[in-house]
Amino acid sequence: MTAVWQLPQIKEALSSIDTIAAMERAFQAYSEGRAIVPPVGELLFENPPGDAHIKYGYIRGDDAFVIKIATGFYDNPKKSLPPNSGILVVFSAANGFPSAVLLDEGYLTNARTAAAGAVAAKYLAPAKINCIGICGTGMQARLQLQYLKPVTACRNVMVWGRSSESRERYAREMEAEGFNVQCVASPRTMGKSCELIVTTTLASSPYIEGLYIQPGTHVTAMGSDTPTKNELRPDVLGMADVVVADSRAQCAERGEIHHALAANEIEVGDVVELGEIIGGTAPGRSSGEQVTVCDLTGVAVQDIEISKAVLAHLQR
Amino acid sequence: MTAVWQLPQIKEALSSIDTIAAMERAFQAYSEGRAIVPPVGELLFENPPGDAHIKYGYIRGDDAFVIKIATGFYDNPKKSLPPNSGILVVFSAANGFPSAVLLDEGYLTNARTAAAGAVAAKYLAPAKINCIGICGTGMQARLQLQYLKPVTACRNVMVWGRSSESRERYAREMEAEGFNVQCVASPRTMGKSCELIVTTTLASSPYIEGLYIQPGTHVTAMGSDTPTKNELRPDVLGMADVVVADSRAQCAERGEIHHALAANEIEVGDVVELGEIIGGTAPGRSSGEQVTVCDLTGVAVQDIEISKAVLAHLQR
Repeated sequence: MTAVWQLPQIKEALSSIDTIAAMERAFQAYSEGRAIVPPVGELLFENPPGDAHIKYGYIRGDDAFVIKIATGFYDNPKKSLPPNSGILVVFSAANGFPSAVLLDEGYLTNARTAAAGAVAAKYLAPAKINCIGICGTGMQARLQLQYLKPVTACRNVMVWGRSSESRERYAREMEAEGFNVQCVASPRTMGKSCELIVTTTLASSPYIEGLYIQPGTHVTAMGSDTPTKNELRPDVLGMADVVVADSRAQCAERGEIHHALAANEIEVGDVVELGEIIGGTAPGRSSGEQVTVCDLTGVAVQDIEISKAVLAHLQR
Repeated sequence: MTAVWQLPQIKEALSSIDTIAAMERAFQAYSEGRAIVPPVGELLFENPPGDAHIKYGYIRGDDAFVIKIATGFYDNPKKSLPPNSGILVVFSAANGFPSAVLLDEGYLTNARTAAAGAVAAKYLAPAKINCIGICGTGMQARLQLQYLKPVTACRNVMVWGRSSESRERYAREMEAEGFNVQCVASPRTMGKSCELIVTTTLASSPYIEGLYIQPGTHVTAMGSDTPTKNELRPDVLGMADVVVADSRAQCAERGEIHHALAANEIEVGDVVELGEIIGGTAPGRSSGEQVTVCDLTGVAVQDIEISKAVLAHLQR
């Protein structure tokens, strides 16, 4: 029988497991070549505009494989519906039968994306953080901050987003979560004060420039997962001492790194993978003065590991 | 809320809908360019050996899109488990939410494949059939015959398969379904007596040769859906007056047609699509003496249309 799990059960499981550790395992398995993750499947829709992405695969030796479908329909908020949804199906690698359906409504994708941001900060941010800069005021802007709690003691936040209303709503909500939040009108302000900057927007032209960034800053860019979206001007990556990808192959085509490659600000040989740093086969930050950048585009191995961890809890 | 449907409900729905008409709509939509069906996603497993295929897409203007996962784990019968399983997920094209999960255990794939065989026979077999030849004795050998019932009055069957035990078991079961079944030790025998031959095996080297085939025969080859599986020697396609594909593009890479193309027995311009014949834009059989061949490799549009038809019944 295929077990079917609903969102409240999935959220309860998430609150009981170590999602950050699951993402560490995911990135390390990926960089060690132990993950089989074919290219992402994609469906595009015009009216209403939307997309569906299929990420799937398995880790060699595992007893399960996972197929995740995540959708984004960007007119949904006009109808008071969330833009993202989805479903995960976990199969037995012993017989091919579907063992579990996770009706997660896209939540596991949000959670694993936020947890990946925490992993990037854990390995790359400087030891002392006085202020966290968050670009964007949406779901990921909220979740990234929540998932950073276990990896830094800093509770001071600057937030920048397109409208003052959204910034102020974000500030109120995050203050209720125990942060001190200052709204700023430009990402430039944030560069002067924040040692950790997380970009979470859907921007299609870059809004963070190299001259904004001080020595000793780490930037995690997780907003762009397509060839066209772009948050960091290529010179930000050009000035960085360490440029990190979740997947070197995928970041050569999507996210921030491919823009910097095209602009000749970096070479592909300069890019290390987060899983290599976790596994100790590549250096991460080696001094408090370095600038580090991590480009997160999302890989199926994250969906695999978070599903396994959630299911292990649900089926305990 | 996502509705979750189990196999008994799905089977009941299938018995109430016109699956053959759904497949006619599917092939016509495909050949008219109204279907968006990206390349098939694939996962391969070594130990135990198995595969998972992801077929997905939608028909322009529909309010739904469909993602189907079908698995084949070929050691399962050693464990007294069926080799095939799977799941279908239907999404709203209005907002991207998953509207239904069909826990079909691979049954809808079997049903739509059998219904496609019936469509091929309906449009391509000669008017008078004295005997149906079935190659193979597995699940599809059974279903193909059952789905042929509405499209031909013929109930005389010859069956060929690797072992005499499996042929005799098949004969007993199909006689219980109202057929007169003769077991034969060679597909050559079948060529002399059968105006409609359906090949359903997993053969990797061809076992039907041109010299077996009499004028006025239609052959539907549905066993091969990969680049390597092969049931018909290329000369069977070379001698055919009409060579038909479910998908010209897919059959150029998988199934029977690509072997005949490689052997220079046919040219891609000779191949017509089943949906073109259904839609009246390509001729099918034009005389009782012609030899016709239809290569079915399975396209996502079949999964889309059968899911829509089943769901319309379940949600009535």
